Amino acid sequence: MEHKIADLPNGKTNGAHPEIHELDASKLTITLADPSARAVPDEITANSGNETICTDHMISCTWSHTSGWATPELKPLGPISLHPTASVLHYATECFEGLKAFRGFDGKLRLFRPNLNANRMLMSTLRISLPGFNPAELEKLIAALVRVDGAKWLPASRPGSFLYLRPAIIGTQAQLGVQAPKEALLFITLSFMPRLDAAVGGMKLHTNPEDMVRAWVGGFGYAKVGANYGPSLLATAEAKERGFGQILWLYGPEGYCTEAGASNFFLVWRAKESEGGKLQIITAPLDDKLILDGVTRRSVVALAKERLAGEVEVVERKYTIDEVLEADKEGRIVEAFAAGTAYFVTPVSLIHHRGQDVVIPMANGDAGVYTNKLKGWMKDIMYGNEQHPWGVVIDEA
Amino acid sequence: MEHKIADLPNGKTNGAHPEIHELDASKLTITLADPSARAVPDEITANSGNETICTDHMISCTWSHTSGWATPELKPLGPISLHPTASVLHYATECFEGLKAFRGFDGKLRLFRPNLNANRMLMSTLRISLPGFNPAELEKLIAALVRVDGAKWLPASRPGSFLYLRPAIIGTQAQLGVQAPKEALLFITLSFMPRLDAAVGGMKLHTNPEDMVRAWVGGFGYAKVGANYGPSLLATAEAKERGFGQILWLYGPEGYCTEAGASNFFLVWRAKESEGGKLQIITAPLDDKLILDGVTRRSVVALAKERLAGEVEVVERKYTIDEVLEADKEGRIVEAFAAGTAYFVTPVSLIHHRGQDVVIPMANGDAGVYTNKLKGWMKDIMYGNEQHPWGVVIDEA
Repeated sequence: MEHKIADLPNGKTNGAHPEIHELDASKLTITLADPSARAVPDEITANSGNETICTDHMISCTWSHTSGWATPELKPLGPISLHPTASVLHYATECFEGLKAFRGFDGKLRLFRPNLNANRMLMSTLRISLPGFNPAELEKLIAALVRVDGAKWLPASRPGSFLYLRPAIIGTQAQLGVQAPKEALLFITLSFMPRLDAAVGGMKLHTNPEDMVRAWVGGFGYAKVGANYGPSLLATAEAKERGFGQILWLYGPEGYCTEAGASNFFLVWRAKESEGGKLQIITAPLDDKLILDGVTRRSVVALAKERLAGEVEVVERKYTIDEVLEADKEGRIVEAFAAGTAYFVTPVSLIHHRGQDVVIPMANGDAGVYTNKLKGWMKDIMYGNEQHPWGVVIDEA
Repeated sequence: MEHKIADLPNGKTNGAHPEIHELDASKLTITLADPSARAVPDEITANSGNETICTDHMISCTWSHTSGWATPELKPLGPISLHPTASVLHYATECFEGLKAFRGFDGKLRLFRPNLNANRMLMSTLRISLPGFNPAELEKLIAALVRVDGAKWLPASRPGSFLYLRPAIIGTQAQLGVQAPKEALLFITLSFMPRLDAAVGGMKLHTNPEDMVRAWVGGFGYAKVGANYGPSLLATAEAKERGFGQILWLYGPEGYCTEAGASNFFLVWRAKESEGGKLQIITAPLDDKLILDGVTRRSVVALAKERLAGEVEVVERKYTIDEVLEADKEGRIVEAFAAGTAYFVTPVSLIHHRGQDVVIPMANGDAGVYTNKLKGWMKDIMYGNEQHPWGVVIDEA
């Protein structure tokens, strides 16, 4: 253990080999589907089944270790054909991203900080031994898909609505044996996704069973790789059976609070009098690589620092469930919420831990004042009520 | 954290719902490929490319939460078609098994303790929230595939050769969102696999970099789920670049020795004089669920206890890399080997840890006396030189 894994490469795959091609969005070929073949369902119908409803097209680009990235294609949505021995089906050589495309109240299509997703996807793909790429090219491919399907599937007649983008990279080499895949596939879909940010009565969290840990120091909790998700389903299903929305994942014998389900977790509380008694927004830190560096998390932290300065202090540090229980006993807890792309900003109303309930005060209908403020600011940026550099307009001309 | 995840269910999926079907090998339908379409390559050619060469057929069986297991099919080998939003491609809802089919020197086809693989597959599928089944039915499906393809692909003219069976279950539901899949697919392939048990000069191990841990207590290191493999590739690739064969995965600040690559790890050493000075075969224990309960590991332990009794003591306990270094300094290390289905019993010749080399004595050509004895006994059972209950003959009538 005398060394650490060296800094991961920068995503360039050719190095001294010009015959190995970089991912190049400018080469994108476009094959359009028959636009009359499928009608666009309303949001409720689209989200009511057991299958995700995708738009007419997808983006697809193959990679091989000998020739690099092939020509990216925008083409009609269709199945992916894999050999039964394909790496991804056995060894979880897979990573993904999730971001939304928004139809603004000003009629414009926007993405929210897509560069952060593209950068994180690069980090994830390298962590799971899949090929690197220039994140700016992925961003362009994402924008191209939104541009082609946006007018029909996210029409100007539905301001305030969104669709969900799912870029993924999978190892496709058809060879058994535990090794880095020599072939891979990048694909991007655009689909409906339910609105998950307003659970009736707030989201209820149950701390994890003691024999189930989500991530660990030296692991890969910070990367958006499939391996973080499948193994968490068992505990989550059990919590749901007990009437809870998600697991609050604790870490280590100290019981550090880390993530809520697959979202980041925030608490608004008043610090102890002995520690100044200030109002604080607290969340787990990124430095031990246990948790995902969420785009919503980053945005919450930045907006709170900028717009709640003097009013609420932003604290990124390790804190334990015992601190939460103590704050609850002392009446210092003010609000709590989960933050992520899928769940956006979801008020948390209860934390259940070892037979104890921490009931989180709720106000303003079903969310706290600060939860609502932060959520509102982000919504305004996403839907164009506030012109802001985080809201990246997709040109539909 | 007041509870532990309840004992996993027994694999029965219907419970009180008779309309939900169990996996039933007796229903197997058989569609044969044209046997003249593909010739059987020799072993070296078959293993020389970047693609696994499978036999003519595969077994496939779909599952859904509303109807259970469908009719299993034995059919010509072909690709698997998945929707781009299929669970397995994003959330690593996947598990697998690996076992070999042997053509004996007595002309018979055999599997080696296939019930252990089938039982472990049940444990793995439930851990990763995929459907359960009766392990005996999986065993029958495995045998059916070997029976159909054995005569051509593992012919009596090639005694002493083997093919590799890969049963896998994947989550196929085409819905994004982190949830247990409502649809799944079981498939089994039979293929060539290189002989990996005799690295020239022995296998060299490098301890893991300090920022990469394979598995952790409360995780899923004991289950054969994809999520254990993809994340390990980065460290393994780095070790290979430095001239080592696999990572020796250490655990915790104590540096407990756990697995060698994706194999179990055994050391033969002489205990300290203060502890009796006996010859011991030592390997990590299963009780903290960090390591895989390997079929080869079990067999080594059982054979050593039975056939080396009085000569070598079998010890399953936690032991640290520091103990290994100390034993090396004191000249107490006798042999070391990795044990698993793919690598069988592979002699280990060197362990590199923090700038120090532990050189393992080698004898009898390139393996130690006990390594060779254990390997020989298992080979004799696998290839029918010894009639033993572990060698399960596949009836080819």
